[in-house]
Amino acid sequence: MLPTFRRDPRVRLVAAFDPRESATQAFGREFGGRACETAEAVCADPAVEWVYVATPHQMHVEHVQLAARHGKHVIVEKPMALAIPDCTHMIDACRAAGTHLVVGHSHSFNTPVLHARRLIDSGRFGAVRAIHALNFTDFLYRPRRPEELDTAQGGGVVFSQAAHQVEVVRLLGGGLVHSVCARTGRWDPARPTEGAYSALLTFRSGAFASLTYNGYGYYDSDAQMDGVGEMGKPKAPGTHQQTRRKLAAATDEAEEARLKAERNFGGSAYVPDDGAAPDAFQHFGPVLVSCDGGDLRLTPRGVEIHDREGLRFDAPPVPPVPRSEVVDELWACTREGRVPLHDGAWSRATLEVCLAILESARGGGDIILGLQTELPFP
Amino acid sequence: MLPTFRRDPRVRLVAAFDPRESATQAFGREFGGRACETAEAVCADPAVEWVYVATPHQMHVEHVQLAARHGKHVIVEKPMALAIPDCTHMIDACRAAGTHLVVGHSHSFNTPVLHARRLIDSGRFGAVRAIHALNFTDFLYRPRRPEELDTAQGGGVVFSQAAHQVEVVRLLGGGLVHSVCARTGRWDPARPTEGAYSALLTFRSGAFASLTYNGYGYYDSDAQMDGVGEMGKPKAPGTHQQTRRKLAAATDEAEEARLKAERNFGGSAYVPDDGAAPDAFQHFGPVLVSCDGGDLRLTPRGVEIHDREGLRFDAPPVPPVPRSEVVDELWACTREGRVPLHDGAWSRATLEVCLAILESARGGGDIILGLQTELPFP
Repeated sequence: MLPTFRRDPRVRLVAAFDPRESATQAFGREFGGRACETAEAVCADPAVEWVYVATPHQMHVEHVQLAARHGKHVIVEKPMALAIPDCTHMIDACRAAGTHLVVGHSHSFNTPVLHARRLIDSGRFGAVRAIHALNFTDFLYRPRRPEELDTAQGGGVVFSQAAHQVEVVRLLGGGLVHSVCARTGRWDPARPTEGAYSALLTFRSGAFASLTYNGYGYYDSDAQMDGVGEMGKPKAPGTHQQTRRKLAAATDEAEEARLKAERNFGGSAYVPDDGAAPDAFQHFGPVLVSCDGGDLRLTPRGVEIHDREGLRFDAPPVPPVPRSEVVDELWACTREGRVPLHDGAWSRATLEVCLAILESARGGGDIILGLQTELPFP
Repeated sequence: MLPTFRRDPRVRLVAAFDPRESATQAFGREFGGRACETAEAVCADPAVEWVYVATPHQMHVEHVQLAARHGKHVIVEKPMALAIPDCTHMIDACRAAGTHLVVGHSHSFNTPVLHARRLIDSGRFGAVRAIHALNFTDFLYRPRRPEELDTAQGGGVVFSQAAHQVEVVRLLGGGLVHSVCARTGRWDPARPTEGAYSALLTFRSGAFASLTYNGYGYYDSDAQMDGVGEMGKPKAPGTHQQTRRKLAAATDEAEEARLKAERNFGGSAYVPDDGAAPDAFQHFGPVLVSCDGGDLRLTPRGVEIHDREGLRFDAPPVPPVPRSEVVDELWACTREGRVPLHDGAWSRATLEVCLAILESARGGGDIILGLQTELPFP
């Protein structure tokens, strides 16, 4: 999120904490904000309005509760948590404090997703009947900390990547998933967590969705996205194979974790945002929405509409700051008095689907859900 | 199959029967073969070696039994039948007669599918772990006879189109499907049969497959196949919308059925094969096979191989006669003494999956299968 926070004029970074001292120091140097020595010091700072929790998944509940206790609004990264009760604790903490809880960034914030939702809401295409979402990435072979390869600690593609894809699909399908049937793949003994899944979701409306994700780093579905990568920038063919080759050079777990840390802010291999305005949207792979009156295909440039009249293209303007859609939602909460879309209950419902993917893959059959939420608008 | 039978030198059409007199007469005129007045007369003809049964689905069992009683080998169109016992009757009839039973054409005969299978069999890519198959067509809006829009009579995309897609996926996955979870869409009350489905298949090996089909005629997944259509020929964008528009001009069921009949051999709107050698293979939409050591992407030109080394392309030669792969299999049976791949038991197993798609969509949950067959070779 740093390129967003750096460039969106609605955001000022006033305090930060990171267990890597190099990051906290770089923060003070670059942003002139307070370099704190604990997470609590950030939360207690009276200049802080929103706390952004970007800690490892299993620490979210502790840090959200901490921020809420100090009366702060919170944005917490996905996956919201690894278990439903933790989500409920976070929701309760913010409700008790009277503060907003938003979960993101996820790719359901992307403009083409929100624009497709607006097209659906217009009623021009009738009911959503089916959704198809696909993504082939190199996820499993990017440098990882050990816990990212341990499902019990929130590792693997179901917690990290289904969290995106399920959000996108729920947003397009209206939110209320009835049941989940899924299979997962754990195919590489050296990286013993889920690297792939296929899931069949059924909405209460009767609409269904097919989701497939493969993070094993061979085929690249960005070939279907005009060669635009997840971050909205041109991507060279062969990127996945390079990811595998670079990782093969890491000698052990510690070296791999170090490679990852060095790529983050304050690390020696950190590549700062080039500041160029993107010419495409971020995306999470090919998505097709089938409605009674037409099919909508999401692309990194907008939404392709295939209906009785033929093919046309809706291209909303690309925001000059990537992921500024996230700031839009925070701004709408605390400056315009609107309810957030990606609130705690919404995101708990997404985790419920992710957990059902794991459960169905273990035991077979359909898992019936009970915590789903509708879109709060229109 | 007529362009194949016309041009493959291994085939001679010696007798035929069609209830449309115009077709039987055109047959005698064009092929110089016997224009018979009953199906039985074709089967009884001593010059006939293979009987090709292209009658409506529900008549297959009667006609296969008839051919077998006369000691003929039989090729019968897919879907083999609408119920398992009918498949078994056909298998038993041919076994008792000592004749071969082959089910086809289906798109699992296509060279890229067979070539991908050979690549898998080579062992170079390790185990098949997952398969993804997609197809968006205009199936439901092509002119239809009334029974093609009635599931009970074998109408709809599960009987007609899953028969292709499941065959392709079973062939690539090795054949032995353990369970099926699926949802179907019946979205147009004017065409009250399944027009779409998504299915999640699990193989006994643990591999899984995600299959999605949409025949409602908006988006065209041939855009992902270099603009090459199902029949291996260039396809203009907007074809689906034209299909819907042409159908809208039909005034009633009888007129629509007449439109369909006129497009067949001997009809006034029949377009004979232009005799040009195709430059691409026939296909059934985008198919991805994920193996331990690489992903295989089937295209109308061959197989894209994505593995550790990068991307390369295997392009087997396009046969000068389309669907000559079907004749290859018949020839292998009766001239080279080989067992057919697409025999009765294999194809009954495909119907079992199609019926499980319908059953799972009605009742939810996984349907466990019991009649699956392995590939007979290598």
